[in-house]
Amino acid sequence: MLKQKLDAVLISSIPNIIYLTDFSGFGTKDRDAFLLITNTHQYLFTHAIYRDAAMKFIKKFELIGMNRENPTGESIKKLIINHSIKKLGFEDANLSVWEFERLFKKVNKKILLPTGVVSQLRTIKNTDEIDAIKNACALGDKAYSHIQKSLRIGMSEKDVAFELEYFIRKNGGEISFTTIVAFGENAAYIHHEKGNRRLKSDEFVLLDFGVKLNNYCSDMSRTFFFGKARADDRKSYQSVLKSQQNAIDYIEEKLSKKEKIQGEMADKISRDYLVSQGFPNLPYSLGHGIGLEVHEAPRLTPAYKQILENGMVFSIEPGIYLTGKFGIRIEDLFAIENNKLIPLTHSPKDLIEIK
Amino acid sequence: MLKQKLDAVLISSIPNIIYLTDFSGFGTKDRDAFLLITNTHQYLFTHAIYRDAAMKFIKKFELIGMNRENPTGESIKKLIINHSIKKLGFEDANLSVWEFERLFKKVNKKILLPTGVVSQLRTIKNTDEIDAIKNACALGDKAYSHIQKSLRIGMSEKDVAFELEYFIRKNGGEISFTTIVAFGENAAYIHHEKGNRRLKSDEFVLLDFGVKLNNYCSDMSRTFFFGKARADDRKSYQSVLKSQQNAIDYIEEKLSKKEKIQGEMADKISRDYLVSQGFPNLPYSLGHGIGLEVHEAPRLTPAYKQILENGMVFSIEPGIYLTGKFGIRIEDLFAIENNKLIPLTHSPKDLIEIK
Repeated sequence: MLKQKLDAVLISSIPNIIYLTDFSGFGTKDRDAFLLITNTHQYLFTHAIYRDAAMKFIKKFELIGMNRENPTGESIKKLIINHSIKKLGFEDANLSVWEFERLFKKVNKKILLPTGVVSQLRTIKNTDEIDAIKNACALGDKAYSHIQKSLRIGMSEKDVAFELEYFIRKNGGEISFTTIVAFGENAAYIHHEKGNRRLKSDEFVLLDFGVKLNNYCSDMSRTFFFGKARADDRKSYQSVLKSQQNAIDYIEEKLSKKEKIQGEMADKISRDYLVSQGFPNLPYSLGHGIGLEVHEAPRLTPAYKQILENGMVFSIEPGIYLTGKFGIRIEDLFAIENNKLIPLTHSPKDLIEIK
Repeated sequence: MLKQKLDAVLISSIPNIIYLTDFSGFGTKDRDAFLLITNTHQYLFTHAIYRDAAMKFIKKFELIGMNRENPTGESIKKLIINHSIKKLGFEDANLSVWEFERLFKKVNKKILLPTGVVSQLRTIKNTDEIDAIKNACALGDKAYSHIQKSLRIGMSEKDVAFELEYFIRKNGGEISFTTIVAFGENAAYIHHEKGNRRLKSDEFVLLDFGVKLNNYCSDMSRTFFFGKARADDRKSYQSVLKSQQNAIDYIEEKLSKKEKIQGEMADKISRDYLVSQGFPNLPYSLGHGIGLEVHEAPRLTPAYKQILENGMVFSIEPGIYLTGKFGIRIEDLFAIENNKLIPLTHSPKDLIEIK
């Protein structure tokens, strides 16, 4: 708020509301809550159905009802007047054009400034947050170990996803995003979630899944071979692994020298290596921040200039996708703590052949 | 498009893209695809990672790559020039303010008109769509029957949700929204999803859950008594049931007379009855449309003027929520077909006491 010289911010993003209130009960489908924060006051706008829960769990915010008699736009207008707000930040990445027009119908648009201040705060995690992500990763590692033992010829991709998610939930976690399980040539479609394709021998199995535990997310990918890998399968796999290791080495070296690291540079190292080995250019970003959301800042992607700093948590996930043949991805999460790159995912990465 | 006299529309909502392309592979977290539809041409913008899938599954659209060298905003601008587009519709309920500014940076804002044309088309379902929702409801009914047999004292709300979802997925469905399981006084918090609270005897159990099958959603709520209900518990339950029946009777009567029904009127009938019985005013809307999304148009809610028509599918779901005591909700889906209100949910609604 200080940097942008804002008098107040209107927070609409649910992950940002969870971050500021520690309350994760608001629905994500409809617009159930807003926060308005000034230098002296904190307001929570919500529907009557959340009133009891809000009064119990969100004590540091003054409650303002959202209903037909008291529309949020009117309440915002009153607060702008009462607090003499000259510059009000709003979350332009979160509010739809329709919501913006409706909420600020009676407000002079000139006082409204787009802001991502809370999302930006969230990029630097404290140790409690990093611990929460570590715990989510640890359950992901256990689930990965479990699923390897459960694989049988003839299981469908859906069966494998189900077994994986069953294990996660039985152990107290939730799923942080739609689980991807892809066998053989299906893995070449990055979009492929899972289907009725059944496991055969001698093919790659690609898993990309995440755990949500105490609101914080994990995300990991592993690719292993069901059967006996051929020499070229091994080469492809090793190239992905080396591409990831090159990015890790680069970041570690920069950290040890206390030099600045831009997300785009780590991405370039990994990407260039794959191309140098004759594989297609990485068809997506090398990595993304993670926390209350699966995808958040920072990014490891071309033209991303933000510096990777202590407290950031992100993925490093190169891959090779060859249409009609296979897909390979290896993805781990890392935190930067005390100028060190700390791996949060601990599942082995040498090419595993399951027979 | 005709009504608004648009020359073209840019479609960004993923459910709307599924509706128009029959392809459900695009992710929902990032912005992976747009459609631009003119009177003569259909374009699909997507990332390279979706190219193969798009070419295989979305044949009626011309493919335009989305990448740094060819940003979507530039492609849109070229098409506006090539097709002499004077009025371009955009989905204001779906595009964020940030996306709007970025996509249309180089476009004269005066040619841009907010539209909900595809969302509006989706409110009228064809028989294939209604059948898909019926199938999702039928699996919901089976899951509800299954869970009643599985309840035991000492199970947690999470255990019950897990067992319910396990059954749905084992039978080929997905979950259409976060399952709600609430025991006793927890059910009075409408937001309550589920927790570690364990089932005791003599309390209400509230379930609100949905199935997704072939992209189409179901949504149902049932409340039953675990143990022996007291007289006032019965009275509360019967009042919710009667409140729902009154709305059903009202809609059926209007349909039989071929009179117009506004969503707000059905809501009022149900709401007024609860208040007349001494219960709190319904703290949410009586009903919502459902289809590719769990919540879509039409709405049964105050001040909603749109007419309920043949081909619409929606919920009717009154409830009573008494803080510190209990919550009761009964929710069924209905379709209007041939001027008749057809129930799609078939689980029994008399107060069940499980011993």
